[in-house]
Amino acid sequence: MSDLSDLKVQVCAANNALRTEQLVTLTWGNVSGINAERDRVVIKPSGVDYDALTPGNMVVVDLDGNVIEGNLRPSSDTPTHVLLYKAFNTIGGITHTHSPYATMFAQARIDLPCFGTTHADHFDGPVPVTRPLTAEEVERAYEAETGTVIIDCFRDLGLNPDAVPGVLVAGHAPFAWGPTAMVSVHNAVALEACARMALGTMQLNADAMLLEDYVLNKHHQRKHGPNAYYGQTKK
Amino acid sequence: MSDLSDLKVQVCAANNALRTEQLVTLTWGNVSGINAERDRVVIKPSGVDYDALTPGNMVVVDLDGNVIEGNLRPSSDTPTHVLLYKAFNTIGGITHTHSPYATMFAQARIDLPCFGTTHADHFDGPVPVTRPLTAEEVERAYEAETGTVIIDCFRDLGLNPDAVPGVLVAGHAPFAWGPTAMVSVHNAVALEACARMALGTMQLNADAMLLEDYVLNKHHQRKHGPNAYYGQTKK
Amino acid sequence: MSDLSDLKVQVCAANNALRTEQLVTLTWGNVSGINAERDRVVIKPSGVDYDALTPGNMVVVDLDGNVIEGNLRPSSDTPTHVLLYKAFNTIGGITHTHSPYATMFAQARIDLPCFGTTHADHFDGPVPVTRPLTAEEVERAYEAETGTVIIDCFRDLGLNPDAVPGVLVAGHAPFAWGPTAMVSVHNAVALEACARMALGTMQLNADAMLLEDYVLNKHHQRKHGPNAYYGQTKK
Amino acid sequence: MSDLSDLKVQVCAANNALRTEQLVTLTWGNVSGINAERDRVVIKPSGVDYDALTPGNMVVVDLDGNVIEGNLRPSSDTPTHVLLYKAFNTIGGITHTHSPYATMFAQARIDLPCFGTTHADHFDGPVPVTRPLTAEEVERAYEAETGTVIIDCFRDLGLNPDAVPGVLVAGHAPFAWGPTAMVSVHNAVALEACARMALGTMQLNADAMLLEDYVLNKHHQRKHGPNAYYGQTKK
Repeated sequence: MSDLSDLKVQVCAANNALRTEQLVTLTWGNVSGINAERDRVVIKPSGVDYDALTPGNMVVVDLDGNVIEGNLRPSSDTPTHVLLYKAFNTIGGITHTHSPYATMFAQARIDLPCFGTTHADHFDGPVPVTRPLTAEEVERAYEAETGTVIIDCFRDLGLNPDAVPGVLVAGHAPFAWGPTAMVSVHNAVALEACARMALGTMQLNADAMLLEDYVLNKHHQRKHGPNAYYGQTKK
Repeated sequence: MSDLSDLKVQVCAANNALRTEQLVTLTWGNVSGINAERDRVVIKPSGVDYDALTPGNMVVVDLDGNVIEGNLRPSSDTPTHVLLYKAFNTIGGITHTHSPYATMFAQARIDLPCFGTTHADHFDGPVPVTRPLTAEEVERAYEAETGTVIIDCFRDLGLNPDAVPGVLVAGHAPFAWGPTAMVSVHNAVALEACARMALGTMQLNADAMLLEDYVLNKHHQRKHGPNAYYGQTKK
Repeated sequence: MSDLSDLKVQVCAANNALRTEQLVTLTWGNVSGINAERDRVVIKPSGVDYDALTPGNMVVVDLDGNVIEGNLRPSSDTPTHVLLYKAFNTIGGITHTHSPYATMFAQARIDLPCFGTTHADHFDGPVPVTRPLTAEEVERAYEAETGTVIIDCFRDLGLNPDAVPGVLVAGHAPFAWGPTAMVSVHNAVALEACARMALGTMQLNADAMLLEDYVLNKHHQRKHGPNAYYGQTKK
Repeated sequence: MSDLSDLKVQVCAANNALRTEQLVTLTWGNVSGINAERDRVVIKPSGVDYDALTPGNMVVVDLDGNVIEGNLRPSSDTPTHVLLYKAFNTIGGITHTHSPYATMFAQARIDLPCFGTTHADHFDGPVPVTRPLTAEEVERAYEAETGTVIIDCFRDLGLNPDAVPGVLVAGHAPFAWGPTAMVSVHNAVALEACARMALGTMQLNADAMLLEDYVLNKHHQRKHGPNAYYGQTKK
């Protein structure tokens, strides 16, 4: 097994960034990261204040959710994270928050439309809402089934999780992901900002038009495509 | 009588948390706590800046609202707090604020609906609005009667104050409570966040559906039920 | 002439409080105070950053707006302040801001209704919007005529400026006042908070009922009446 | 060529002000300035955190957008900035952000109306939305064509960029400008504040009247006209 100390530092820093970026109230949010071998996930301990987090108290679990290292219980959302890592095999980090504007769309059960380039820079199209869980799913394994409805949603819509790195769980809240734990936090920040601006856009103009597809593609490609020219290094 | 010094420290810290959690404007909010014997209530002095609060200037009253210790006048809302402690005999702390979003619902006189799991994590169903006070009640004993309408509201609706630890007083503002002073502040934080997100949910979708009962129950039980598994210790 | 050094300290602190209370953007706000003899007004210099304010650079003017002391130009709104002091002869401080929610009501040209006790604690009834200035008034003496429309508004509505310590100037922004410069800032804070909550109340319930008169009176009297019992000293 | 060290200090400080004034999320904003000879533009490097900016890592480009000095890639929006400097030959600084409220109007594709004096103090009339770019323009030279639609917009409407120092790019976000880099940031702050207040004004009163022309002119002239009397020096 590879040494996980770097990953613990990254995941701890990403959890702290939830607070810096004002994505969380109380302890309502958690970030995880997976190692290169994709057999160990490092995740925030459940219900612990962000102030009290250190790389040393991050919890290590395997891909069945069993605790491998750590004295604290992992986030209660761990089964969701683990399932997403297994299904979306290019992602390296996951962020779950109840950030207010993204949660409003999740509660209203409305896909987040792409009204502008801010959205296009991060999400290559609308951010979908999942179907609700059934009573049987909630009873059986609530957190794991939350992962399942996300995976079903992406499969049914034919979405690439690298192109649309986030989702709104119906009646619950957003999940976002990315190549690293910190990038997953940045995608959660972008999701929240786009949700806030979409609400205002819809209030100003109930018939607001979606961003033209050719602008959407251009913006996403200049940041994420093979010839990306945003930032200091090509991705 | 038991030593109240620990309770004074807790109540002072909880009052300071009102500001840290951005629940208060000027001096519009107060927190109290009750001792284990349930014969003494420690409460914020009236109209004093949060910066100036110390455990030593907290005011101690008995359950008739008489000042037992302290050189300052207690919060003008003391009669409301005292009545709630007498009626809701499992609660250990009470928070009253005029936090903006919860107050919007109190002013609009609309029960706060449960649209999502954030709400379900803290309140086992809608947070009700009280009936308005009558002119006679206001004249007779305004603050005590405010306690009475809260107690009437919970009795008439058959609500358990441990399951729904908050209320919206019509035309006024929220009260929240909990097993300790600090938990009552956390419930006030949750009430404010849920009110904010409910307003946006209703703006996005005037026909937004309520959270399914089976998800509401699941979320509340995983945090508060006999087999709770959120956080580090069972409650 | 009395020594104005205490008043300069108070007015400087009140101007700094505009920023602490998040009432101002850039340099869009100013506070003044008047001395006990009511012949000298101390006011913020025009267009100066709050960081750069000291008691020593406050400007002293007489009641015709002539600069008596100070090397800087006084706030361009000085003629408004001076007229208000002459007409409302019990007030000791005035705050003018473009705080966003109060300005929304001023721009929408809608009186701020009293929906709850937060409002009643500070304003004994709705906060009115003035009539617009005429083209002739703007041409003649814009800032002085702004004072005149405020004074006309209170006279025409029969309002007592001590009971309703604020106003919304149509198409412009709020003014608030009080017995001291700092209390005028607190009334501006309350006006902003009440405007924010009123907007949300109206969004939740287009037919939201006004606060019952008997609660309005009770709340205002418990803070401001001859038998006030809010805070630590009777007023 | 003139020494650009002063300009680098100014542009670096203006980029840092984006964060202080809460105009930016992540790295979504950039400020540039032009030298007196109007042959060199200093601009933020692309995708670099505001915390990491120093005068020394600002990028210098010529008016064709070629990098003249600096080891980092310039903002991807550089072609837009350069075109604006060539077309608007009195401006000295340009700010581009995705500030939320201005972006809501850009996404809703609605001109920002002038409802009050806050707006009039900075913009001598409505702030226009550009036409959308065509697919051909996006394909050919996206960032340069963004500059072109802004310039077309001002020419077609007969607007003076000194009188209306900002624009909303349809489906994208605002640009603001001014005589210096820091004044362009202040105009971006004013644009955001006015957009926020305009949204609320329209929510309160769907038929809200525009500010009377004679007040608009008066406010703009008292700050920017030949006899300006706002602030400490005539402009």
